[in-house]
Amino acid sequence: MEILLSRIGEVVEGKLSGGYDKIICGAAPFDMATREDITFADSAKFLKKIDKTDAGAVIVPKNFTRSSKLTVMVENPRVAFAKVLALFHPSAKPAYLNSSAGISSNAYIGKNFLCGKDISIAPFAVIQNNVTIGDRVIIHPNAVIEDNVVIGNDVEIYPNATILERCKIGNRVIIHAGTVIGSDGFGFAPDGESYFKIPQTGIVQIDDDVEIGANNAIDRATFGKTRICRGVKTDNLVHIAHNVTVGEDSVIVAQVGISGSVTIGRHAILAGQAGIAGHITLGDNVTIGPQAGVAASVQSDQVMSGSPEMPHRLWLRVQRIICRLPELKKKLSEIEKKLDRIKEGMKLDL
Amino acid sequence: MEILLSRIGEVVEGKLSGGYDKIICGAAPFDMATREDITFADSAKFLKKIDKTDAGAVIVPKNFTRSSKLTVMVENPRVAFAKVLALFHPSAKPAYLNSSAGISSNAYIGKNFLCGKDISIAPFAVIQNNVTIGDRVIIHPNAVIEDNVVIGNDVEIYPNATILERCKIGNRVIIHAGTVIGSDGFGFAPDGESYFKIPQTGIVQIDDDVEIGANNAIDRATFGKTRICRGVKTDNLVHIAHNVTVGEDSVIVAQVGISGSVTIGRHAILAGQAGIAGHITLGDNVTIGPQAGVAASVQSDQVMSGSPEMPHRLWLRVQRIICRLPELKKKLSEIEKKLDRIKEGMKLDL
Amino acid sequence: MEILLSRIGEVVEGKLSGGYDKIICGAAPFDMATREDITFADSAKFLKKIDKTDAGAVIVPKNFTRSSKLTVMVENPRVAFAKVLALFHPSAKPAYLNSSAGISSNAYIGKNFLCGKDISIAPFAVIQNNVTIGDRVIIHPNAVIEDNVVIGNDVEIYPNATILERCKIGNRVIIHAGTVIGSDGFGFAPDGESYFKIPQTGIVQIDDDVEIGANNAIDRATFGKTRICRGVKTDNLVHIAHNVTVGEDSVIVAQVGISGSVTIGRHAILAGQAGIAGHITLGDNVTIGPQAGVAASVQSDQVMSGSPEMPHRLWLRVQRIICRLPELKKKLSEIEKKLDRIKEGMKLDL
Repeated sequence: MEILLSRIGEVVEGKLSGGYDKIICGAAPFDMATREDITFADSAKFLKKIDKTDAGAVIVPKNFTRSSKLTVMVENPRVAFAKVLALFHPSAKPAYLNSSAGISSNAYIGKNFLCGKDISIAPFAVIQNNVTIGDRVIIHPNAVIEDNVVIGNDVEIYPNATILERCKIGNRVIIHAGTVIGSDGFGFAPDGESYFKIPQTGIVQIDDDVEIGANNAIDRATFGKTRICRGVKTDNLVHIAHNVTVGEDSVIVAQVGISGSVTIGRHAILAGQAGIAGHITLGDNVTIGPQAGVAASVQSDQVMSGSPEMPHRLWLRVQRIICRLPELKKKLSEIEKKLDRIKEGMKLDL
Repeated sequence: MEILLSRIGEVVEGKLSGGYDKIICGAAPFDMATREDITFADSAKFLKKIDKTDAGAVIVPKNFTRSSKLTVMVENPRVAFAKVLALFHPSAKPAYLNSSAGISSNAYIGKNFLCGKDISIAPFAVIQNNVTIGDRVIIHPNAVIEDNVVIGNDVEIYPNATILERCKIGNRVIIHAGTVIGSDGFGFAPDGESYFKIPQTGIVQIDDDVEIGANNAIDRATFGKTRICRGVKTDNLVHIAHNVTVGEDSVIVAQVGISGSVTIGRHAILAGQAGIAGHITLGDNVTIGPQAGVAASVQSDQVMSGSPEMPHRLWLRVQRIICRLPELKKKLSEIEKKLDRIKEGMKLDL
Repeated sequence: MEILLSRIGEVVEGKLSGGYDKIICGAAPFDMATREDITFADSAKFLKKIDKTDAGAVIVPKNFTRSSKLTVMVENPRVAFAKVLALFHPSAKPAYLNSSAGISSNAYIGKNFLCGKDISIAPFAVIQNNVTIGDRVIIHPNAVIEDNVVIGNDVEIYPNATILERCKIGNRVIIHAGTVIGSDGFGFAPDGESYFKIPQTGIVQIDDDVEIGANNAIDRATFGKTRICRGVKTDNLVHIAHNVTVGEDSVIVAQVGISGSVTIGRHAILAGQAGIAGHITLGDNVTIGPQAGVAASVQSDQVMSGSPEMPHRLWLRVQRIICRLPELKKKLSEIEKKLDRIKEGMKLDL
């Protein structure tokens, strides 16, 4: 694919240093780009060596002019580069832009299906009864949408994903393969030695611009809703229990587990394999370290690590000591011996 | 839905304080219930403020009579409430009670299918050869049941779940979406630098009244069976390796991993993200804390936490010290300095 | 099934101590074998009591002759036993040996399908457009192969697995049920409070003789490829992020998470629930302990444990101290008191 540099400038709303007629054939990282490619540089590290990339053009920050390269100056080079990448890789573009519209004759469509225009429903996808979906929705093969589900516009649901009854999906949502939305919350009432299942009557509501990774499991609420707010991104193999709320623009990294009735604020980051205990609250802008085990609520703007959690700065000091514990223990023994000898020397009865 | 309070009393085998003709329209938590709803109170906390709920009736413990509210006295209010909830939410009821019976013409049914009455097999479900299933079984869309599987009565298998060849499922079992039962155990014989696959010839047997969460993976045995005993409940994303036995009424919380040939007793509780090393035994009534790493066998009735595991009470003390390690290290340095000065003062050669 | 012992000797390339006409009816572990079975013994523990097994024949190491049992002497008894097991359990044999060849009329096959001979494609499997697969490939029900995927010979893909567009699968690869190959890498560019999706333009390439467990998620690269090299084995619920390379014959145990751009050498072992931070390198023959959190690169031949990681021998000493921390803290207090008394006794101003 060939795209004029001036066209790229328009797409990213950037200012060119020249080369309006330069033909660009691809987008690539700084070290992999060839003369036909465009790349980006947004940190001192790369800006310093900008003249060493082979790239034919470089997307740079607004105020950067010190280069003999053709440059496109923008507010946010990384985002601009992602937009250019999408231009060159239609198959990697938000899928609604290249849907091969239509409902496969091999899909199963239940009763009372309400659907928008330009949708694509693949073979052996199942749409059960009373389902509503918006425009430009793509349902991949073998995905299952159960009764009374409502899905917005520009949504993509990958193969073998399952959206269970009554759940609600907003606009521009991506659900990756194998993920389950709306499984029963893990709720049982002890009944002697055994457990009696508590019916899970609520739903999962996923708001606009959310992306859910592969093989996640997000449980429906016992009452009301489990809610994934606008802009949330989850990685693979994430567990979100019943009645959890994840606030806007929060990021949940792979294999995180969030227990029941947890509330997470806006713009939080939960690193990989962290676990959050039930019924607690994490404030806005909270960051939780990898493998952390968070047992108590965390106030906004805190960075916590460790299991159980502690302030991240403290954790950094603690972890440096943990691997020196044998040494500390040895010192303690030496001190005890010295004390014994002092005691002896002083004839003190300590 | 409108149900007479007297009918509710019958269902939960409770004793009414009055209001036999009272019409109840729903079941809701203590703080969310309206005058048309029934709720429950089973702890001092809620019983104390029972007259403050808006609920039209309250399910209470047997011996509780101090209330101006209409009450239904029962042995176990929480279980009774769960039963009433199921009455009001047929869609959340054990699904065999509202199955739209029949085999979809879009399902695939292999040879020698033996099935009971009132079953429901959804579109694009696959039943391979020589499968036997009991009465009132519900197979959701795109679930796969491979050769020679045997399934009991009143079982529900959710979308995109997979039951692999020869596995056995008891009665009243629920398998949530995306779960895999009977994948190969992780067994390889080192053969020089490479590994030779050890055929996994056994099965998984799931006994009555078990509920398996979403996106679990339960491996078949190398020989014999991996066994999930009566009443076990697993949460989402749980891994159970080959030749494991999980005892009756045990509870396995989300993202727990159980290594090969582990035996777990009755009524155990494994909290979220715990890991159990291979070839060990956990006794009856064992409780394992969240994120614990259990490396050695645990006797019955023990509560263990930490990684590696230790008695939970010890772990509580240990974890309070871990975050004070920098302070302890500082103290140790101060003590060393004091000792040096004492040594000097005493002219001792320590 | 009845197999002559001499035939078994041929299959495992072993030397018989006699009994060429002996009929063997099965293969079983040392303690479970009957007179009709063959078993194996490869350690002093079992060789010592070899005459106590009921087995009709025993596979033993090359140099072992002290037994009244019929023996089959081989280089690697464990591997030989696995081969015999496969003989007796065709259903557990590499599946390409017993495929019921053919494409189900209930499968969906897209345009430009290129396929080898003796393949088996099950009902409701989906092969999208421009897919190439080799000889003796088995695709189980409801597996999905998206556009432009290339698959080699003798591959088995279990139910509800998903192979996304353009990914490449080598020869003799097994992909277990529910696994997702080629989901988008978790890449987003911060754009104010929100995140802009970075298109994931690369692929996943899986080389020969790899086995991927159930419900794994392996992400495609942002650029280039995520690569799983020859002979790698992964257990269940493993997460492998974008641009990771896992070297030949490495073993990844259940619930391990590997972050983006990690490079792992040959013959590494990552134990269960370990987590590897992004952009680091693990050398050849590295072993990582269970639940370890590896934050920095690890050189070849190292064994690391703990979170954060430390040499395994150090970790063994550290973990013995961790559970004695309350005791150490108490000692420290006692020392402080003693010092105070010394100070008083000496009238020193410390």
